Amino acid sequence: MDTLQILRMNGGEGETSYAKNSVVQRKIMSYESPSIEEAVTDILCKNFSETMGMTDLGCSSGPNTLTLVSEVIDMVNSKSQKMGFSLPEIRVSLNDLPGNDFNDIFVSLPTFYQKQEEEKGKGFRNNCFISCVAGSFYGRLFPKKSLHLVHSSSSLHWLSRAPPRLAVDAAVPLNKGKIYISKTSPSSVSKAYLSQFREDLSLFLKSRSEEMVPGGRMVLSFLGRTPADPATEHGGYQWELLAKALTSMVSEGRVLEEKIDSFNAPYYAPSLEEVRNEVEEEGSFVINSLKAFEVEWDAGFQTDSACEIQENKGKISSRGGRVAKTIRAVVESMLESQFGREIIDDLFVKYAELVDDYFSRTTPIYINLVLSVTRKGP
Amino acid sequence: MDTLQILRMNGGEGETSYAKNSVVQRKIMSYESPSIEEAVTDILCKNFSETMGMTDLGCSSGPNTLTLVSEVIDMVNSKSQKMGFSLPEIRVSLNDLPGNDFNDIFVSLPTFYQKQEEEKGKGFRNNCFISCVAGSFYGRLFPKKSLHLVHSSSSLHWLSRAPPRLAVDAAVPLNKGKIYISKTSPSSVSKAYLSQFREDLSLFLKSRSEEMVPGGRMVLSFLGRTPADPATEHGGYQWELLAKALTSMVSEGRVLEEKIDSFNAPYYAPSLEEVRNEVEEEGSFVINSLKAFEVEWDAGFQTDSACEIQENKGKISSRGGRVAKTIRAVVESMLESQFGREIIDDLFVKYAELVDDYFSRTTPIYINLVLSVTRKGP
Repeated sequence: MDTLQILRMNGGEGETSYAKNSVVQRKIMSYESPSIEEAVTDILCKNFSETMGMTDLGCSSGPNTLTLVSEVIDMVNSKSQKMGFSLPEIRVSLNDLPGNDFNDIFVSLPTFYQKQEEEKGKGFRNNCFISCVAGSFYGRLFPKKSLHLVHSSSSLHWLSRAPPRLAVDAAVPLNKGKIYISKTSPSSVSKAYLSQFREDLSLFLKSRSEEMVPGGRMVLSFLGRTPADPATEHGGYQWELLAKALTSMVSEGRVLEEKIDSFNAPYYAPSLEEVRNEVEEEGSFVINSLKAFEVEWDAGFQTDSACEIQENKGKISSRGGRVAKTIRAVVESMLESQFGREIIDDLFVKYAELVDDYFSRTTPIYINLVLSVTRKGP
Repeated sequence: MDTLQILRMNGGEGETSYAKNSVVQRKIMSYESPSIEEAVTDILCKNFSETMGMTDLGCSSGPNTLTLVSEVIDMVNSKSQKMGFSLPEIRVSLNDLPGNDFNDIFVSLPTFYQKQEEEKGKGFRNNCFISCVAGSFYGRLFPKKSLHLVHSSSSLHWLSRAPPRLAVDAAVPLNKGKIYISKTSPSSVSKAYLSQFREDLSLFLKSRSEEMVPGGRMVLSFLGRTPADPATEHGGYQWELLAKALTSMVSEGRVLEEKIDSFNAPYYAPSLEEVRNEVEEEGSFVINSLKAFEVEWDAGFQTDSACEIQENKGKISSRGGRVAKTIRAVVESMLESQFGREIIDDLFVKYAELVDDYFSRTTPIYINLVLSVTRKGP
């Protein structure tokens, strides 16, 4: 099934919402800032025109959504002043899949504009235009040559679909008992995943190359893997533990084994080399930098006082509990459509226990890749 | 209070939703078609560039929202072919206030694109880009000179706020027992309304003039009044009956009299002359046509078979009941914030009775104005 139909971050502002459980993604965004700043400076130096188009792909909803926009506007504002330019007209397009909670973004805009006007003066509202665009970034989303800056954070590790080759013969499941590439998966599984990743990234780059002006900049960050850390060999140990939690519910008669066998996460954590190869092969972009950062599974929580208060409320706020909430906010919609709504609460209690156990043995990390590229000249 | 904060069509797909109760607005749209068609032809003849920007202001959500987009795309498609042009890249911005149910629009887009692709070929998706923009059209919404076609239907009769002059001294209400201009209202009330209308329309025109390309076209339709029909003397008899329904609940102790006295609908039904004067005074646009049409209060229902079936279910499907549902879908959010949620159901039962009674004496009509203008040259 297309990811378009099953993936959406949990909406609203509730306990299991993405809005309340996205501090890891916020932490990841902080690693991108230098690349974004460098890209903004470059765009302003090129002095394209009086207008600057930017997009955030996979913007989701919640506190992170307008943070990026706010940061870029601040950068453009201060850099324009230093360079002696007048502030360009900024066109911001926020993108996510059609099931995203866009209403949440829209209702927060009046406050956002008010705050910006207080900081930057009354004219701000007539200089910054924010719109939302729904659709998969594996395909065209924007008019030709309309974008100067493209950004995407914690999104591009989602494939457009699970590799179809894995579903060829349901009677003989290739990836039995697993929902992502595992140490025990046959090599055909990782090959199928790599193939889908290459197809998707290539289409992504081709689509953006048509939408971006020559010289335009793109900063992408997404989960990946490095050969250095055996625990992240396949960059998806969070899926390994989720498969374990699901499997433990098979014996209880609450999850059908076949449902696990036939489910494969539409996710891929590429290596630096795989990313580099694909960008070079597609050919529309020059790589400025490509780096890997380590991020702890529960990064960001330490500094969040709201979470520290929760700490006293018991098990749900253990490290495993916090990781479970972060993962749940992202994958709940997808698991619901495969395994049913009724198992979700218990599944994530089990998952939290497994993550806690894992934490007792190691310090699990995500590998986050940050790629900065420039659209080649005309 | 700003209309921005209290006006939104009822969301979702339920019994009282705008989506299910907007056949009158659909009927009104049918009167605009010739003006829109003429405007599209003009835009294509001027052959601006390879891209065409259009917006629908006050798009709401529901079946009407994408109907206009669909109609314009069909017109552009067939006219381009006849003229021997290739189809321009179409950029569509759907606008409404931030409280609008934009999620409903976004989830309907995949089906919309699929249908268009079936009709117009696979390339369509890469040629038509739909985005949503939240904010009041009484102010800037879009980048400079980005629009070729501006459309708004059944929206511009909403003022940015109730006339503030009416709220000067709460102890001495100017418009006692009424919620809009009534036969018994002192002349200061209609003057205050006219003044707010002029201020708003002027700001609307100024904002659009900056966003539109010279030669760009705008088609606006909204409720108004003509001197010909005494029943629509002030173009707001629907408010007169709503005030009656509210007043009947005062004696029951369910509505405070002061709440009625202090509420004035942020609505104005201008005359043709008032519209013409304001457009000429603002000066950015040439009037191509300005016409008035009569629309029955329950227009459109006759041809709706779903409603005919309901007819047998009793009182709620009387003509009054249908009108009450149409009005409720539009004004519920506003009345709720003034009078409280708990009176709404009963209020509209009373309202339906009053409308039924009114129907027994006359055939109530709305006057709908259609204004077509061109943005003056560079």
